[in-house]
Amino acid sequence: MKTVGIVGLGLIGGSLGLDLRSHNFNVLGISHRQETCEKAKQIGAVDEYIVLSENSEVDEVKTKLLQGVEIVFICTPIDKITPTLKRLIPYLLPKTIVTDVGSVKTPIVQACSQLWDYFIGGHPMAGTARQGIEAAQNDLFVGAAYVLTPTETTPLVARERVEEIARSLGSIIYTCMPEEHDRAVAWISHLPVMVSAALIDACMSETDPKVFNLARQLASSGFRDTSRVGGGNPELGLMMAQYNQENLLRSLFSYRARLDRLIDTIKRENWDNLESILELTQRSRSEFLSSSHCSIINS
Amino acid sequence: MKTVGIVGLGLIGGSLGLDLRSHNFNVLGISHRQETCEKAKQIGAVDEYIVLSENSEVDEVKTKLLQGVEIVFICTPIDKITPTLKRLIPYLLPKTIVTDVGSVKTPIVQACSQLWDYFIGGHPMAGTARQGIEAAQNDLFVGAAYVLTPTETTPLVARERVEEIARSLGSIIYTCMPEEHDRAVAWISHLPVMVSAALIDACMSETDPKVFNLARQLASSGFRDTSRVGGGNPELGLMMAQYNQENLLRSLFSYRARLDRLIDTIKRENWDNLESILELTQRSRSEFLSSSHCSIINS
Repeated sequence: MKTVGIVGLGLIGGSLGLDLRSHNFNVLGISHRQETCEKAKQIGAVDEYIVLSENSEVDEVKTKLLQGVEIVFICTPIDKITPTLKRLIPYLLPKTIVTDVGSVKTPIVQACSQLWDYFIGGHPMAGTARQGIEAAQNDLFVGAAYVLTPTETTPLVARERVEEIARSLGSIIYTCMPEEHDRAVAWISHLPVMVSAALIDACMSETDPKVFNLARQLASSGFRDTSRVGGGNPELGLMMAQYNQENLLRSLFSYRARLDRLIDTIKRENWDNLESILELTQRSRSEFLSSSHCSIINS
Repeated sequence: MKTVGIVGLGLIGGSLGLDLRSHNFNVLGISHRQETCEKAKQIGAVDEYIVLSENSEVDEVKTKLLQGVEIVFICTPIDKITPTLKRLIPYLLPKTIVTDVGSVKTPIVQACSQLWDYFIGGHPMAGTARQGIEAAQNDLFVGAAYVLTPTETTPLVARERVEEIARSLGSIIYTCMPEEHDRAVAWISHLPVMVSAALIDACMSETDPKVFNLARQLASSGFRDTSRVGGGNPELGLMMAQYNQENLLRSLFSYRARLDRLIDTIKRENWDNLESILELTQRSRSEFLSSSHCSIINS
């Protein structure tokens, strides 16, 4: 039985553990918190675990466990991925495959590829509104996109092995360069967060208490959907901006130009033009979504 | 058996007819298209109908039918509400109550109240992605907000009667001034449409075909939800802008200021500030939605 190591036992790490155990992998969970490890064991997300914090001692037993691992999935928050790899390196056998699940790839792949030959960046695009090991669930990755971002120097075996496992989770695999991934997710994932956050922020600015209360009372599916991702986990939004700053700004500038054009069209009462824009966005959205992996699954 | 007249047999008019007939009203449908009337009759949305276009003859039979109506619901597109009332006036008995379902209230209420004493503006905030009589369905208004906008001169009987009927549909009634309605919906309904349309527009601007295709393939629930209302019926978006121009622009200017602040924060790498903003939008959204009529229903 092959052993997979999962570092970081949150929603993604925990869900991965549940699925991989049901696919007959032996799962070694690694977290810096004893309590998280125990919880993961209790819900069946790991077979065994190591508590590994920055300063915790790595004795012979732990070293042996780590050396028995074929693949490591680093499922920590983005800012902890590279430090985690550094911490693990002394205990891994040289051909151990390491991958991560971070939602930004360029800086992670650059740093980790230099540290470890058998590293390949990955991004399973699955999630729920809930977080942490308590939110872990089976089949979280079914029908979700799983992006792999090998570079020219990534060993083929690393790419093939992670792809095989991702496919076994029911994910749809996409392979591209880290830079392409980051530009694409800036449009469809990171930009929507900021656009949506600004909407919430703006709605809070109404100063007439009667209108403000009425707006809250009348808010329904339109506001609910458009504001959803802007009301999500602030830590995730922050990491997107920090790690994908350049691409996000590029998307935001383009967005602001389009918004300004809309505002100007409304201000000038150029109704034919407004109608054309809205007809185009209606058509564009259905075309856009007809190519998405969601449509592939649903069709 | 009381007779309700419904002018405009689309999604709202048709659905209203289905519900009112099941509440033992006699429903007289009025549309400018023969085909629509027949379809409405066929699906059980009306008991009888009149084809009434701008130039069609109103004979004695039609006049008699119209005079038998207790309440008229004008369910046409916004730009046809006032002309429709003008067209009906010669055939209505003086105390017939007239209401409308338009999504903007101030200009409608101003015009129609001058034309007809027993007019009261209304806005049932229900809908589906589909349109037309084919999309009509029972119970469309259950749990939806139904806003009534009486003025100082609206006869109490008009207000009470429309409120009673709206309540019987399962709607939650809100009463406010037309101007308050229009400012409130500018925030939670009309602004989201423009914010969301600009997002679609921006995403279409990616010039690298590989990144563009990847963005389309990876687009999932975040993009789908944030772009939904911007990809909706262009005619509705246009009417919002035309009839609620001032309030929409006010909301858009506030939105742009908030967006600019976000962009500036990201540009300056003021991460603490960005985190505070995103924490606030997360908290604000749940507070905002906790007051909505949807929460009242769900709790």
